[in-house]
Amino acid sequence: MDNLDALVRGVVEGSPRALGRALSLVERGGEAARELLRRLPAPSRWLPTVAFTGPPGAGKSTLVEQVGLFWQSRGEPVAVLAVDPSSPFSGGALLGDRLRMPRLVEAGGFVRSVATRGSLGGVSAACGDFLELLRAAPFAWALVETVGVGQDEVDVASMVDTVVLLQVPGLGDDVQLAKAGVVEVAHVFVVNKKDRPGTGELVQMLQGLVAQTPETSWRPRVLATVATTGEGVEALVQAIQEHQAHLAENHRRQELAQRRAERRLRALVGELVARRLEQLGPVWEQRVRQVAQGRLDAFAAACELVEYLGGKRR
Amino acid sequence: MDNLDALVRGVVEGSPRALGRALSLVERGGEAARELLRRLPAPSRWLPTVAFTGPPGAGKSTLVEQVGLFWQSRGEPVAVLAVDPSSPFSGGALLGDRLRMPRLVEAGGFVRSVATRGSLGGVSAACGDFLELLRAAPFAWALVETVGVGQDEVDVASMVDTVVLLQVPGLGDDVQLAKAGVVEVAHVFVVNKKDRPGTGELVQMLQGLVAQTPETSWRPRVLATVATTGEGVEALVQAIQEHQAHLAENHRRQELAQRRAERRLRALVGELVARRLEQLGPVWEQRVRQVAQGRLDAFAAACELVEYLGGKRR
Repeated sequence: MDNLDALVRGVVEGSPRALGRALSLVERGGEAARELLRRLPAPSRWLPTVAFTGPPGAGKSTLVEQVGLFWQSRGEPVAVLAVDPSSPFSGGALLGDRLRMPRLVEAGGFVRSVATRGSLGGVSAACGDFLELLRAAPFAWALVETVGVGQDEVDVASMVDTVVLLQVPGLGDDVQLAKAGVVEVAHVFVVNKKDRPGTGELVQMLQGLVAQTPETSWRPRVLATVATTGEGVEALVQAIQEHQAHLAENHRRQELAQRRAERRLRALVGELVARRLEQLGPVWEQRVRQVAQGRLDAFAAACELVEYLGGKRR
Repeated sequence: MDNLDALVRGVVEGSPRALGRALSLVERGGEAARELLRRLPAPSRWLPTVAFTGPPGAGKSTLVEQVGLFWQSRGEPVAVLAVDPSSPFSGGALLGDRLRMPRLVEAGGFVRSVATRGSLGGVSAACGDFLELLRAAPFAWALVETVGVGQDEVDVASMVDTVVLLQVPGLGDDVQLAKAGVVEVAHVFVVNKKDRPGTGELVQMLQGLVAQTPETSWRPRVLATVATTGEGVEALVQAIQEHQAHLAENHRRQELAQRRAERRLRALVGELVARRLEQLGPVWEQRVRQVAQGRLDAFAAACELVEYLGGKRR
């Protein structure tokens, strides 16, 4: 286990090589991953985490690179995780990651694709583990780019502090895009490719949407950018920093950490329960058969199966 | 509970009004929904179920309407469910559904939007319940249009027999679209809007993808359509029918029913477990706090919590 200690040291020092190896280990899961996470020092400071989410083709990668370059140029080291819930393993596609955000890598940023499929506890638990690793390393910002949309997107969003939702004009049905579950949790709305027709309408629609959201202490921002030229990026950086300051001022950090811990625990318990169900063997198989044949109501069967889990009484 | 029996009768007779009310009941969940599902007669025949999935703007609704019209015109009654995992409740937006697929509704098809958020057991369990209802009604085909992508899409796909995945040329990054998790479970790939530039390349890419998939008894079909004019729709209908015939010939139906039952049971058990965790009160809250503060490893905490579930020994 000396290797593992050396790996932890490398992560704490911010070695890209150690970080890459550690992320691969966590991606693969299993006992070695758990042991690595157990050995990480408790985080001594707050690492601001920001998710960039939105439909394919919205320009997420380009915008994330621009935002990363901004902070990196001010001496605030940036880590980027591109979370792909659908791909089985990234296998540490370092070359791919270099090609993905070449200027940010050139500027010293850490960029890495991570896969979450097959992780114990699903996308949100996997994301929580990856961010746990980054919290032990000397980064000033952690940016998470999501590839999936729908529930995956919401799962990733639940693990970060600030959620940036990208939209683009002319991607068909704007209303449909706006229905994505992540709309409700976004802190900053960005209309990218603002040089395209339809930007004004989309910005207006988003402002209307924001106006409709229940009054909370943070009123989501609506911005327009052109990621390829960098237009609007500084305003976006400012909006993210304002949201982070808002969290710190309102003592929301502890609350956020608590909510994430709860989510991770739920996901992990769920996964452990799934394993136990299989261990029930014939009892489990018989109930499945009966439900499949329409001879037993699924809900009644589930209620009965829960009784077979665990053993310790309160 | 006389009302519930009348509702079940209405569903069995295929009354659109009864079906609409029953779907709303199941959407809302709770004891009345469970009771309704318990009272449904065991299905006496196989209802072929087909999911249409793909990115927003791909033309899913138009294509589903065309396919539905085809069968409806041959005297095979069609039910369409538009599953929207992100919206809270459809509230039975009948007018909206009429506007959604006006020609199919005119031709006697049953079209309905259903919400899955907040259902016990998530998208797949909710979808399973909706299809359970349709199985009791006199439909020849059940078509499911998914609104979400990512995990939601995969969840819906897991509940039907035949998965049709739509793609469109020129929607930006084709490779990115093709990475959606549903690619691996699709039985028919459709390039819609084939009059647009880039169709040839996209078809070729999909054919390459299909050629790479592990050899199974069903080789996915790749087709091109123009949903708005109906071009290619007949070939699509044929591909779906071929897949259904393949399932019947290879005795795959029972296996499918079994797999779906397993999935539903897992989802329901997971949800019941989540409720029990909350009932643990102080034990649960303390573990969450300790994990949030980095004083306890999430995995170790989860292992301990599982022991508090259930009570019956094998």
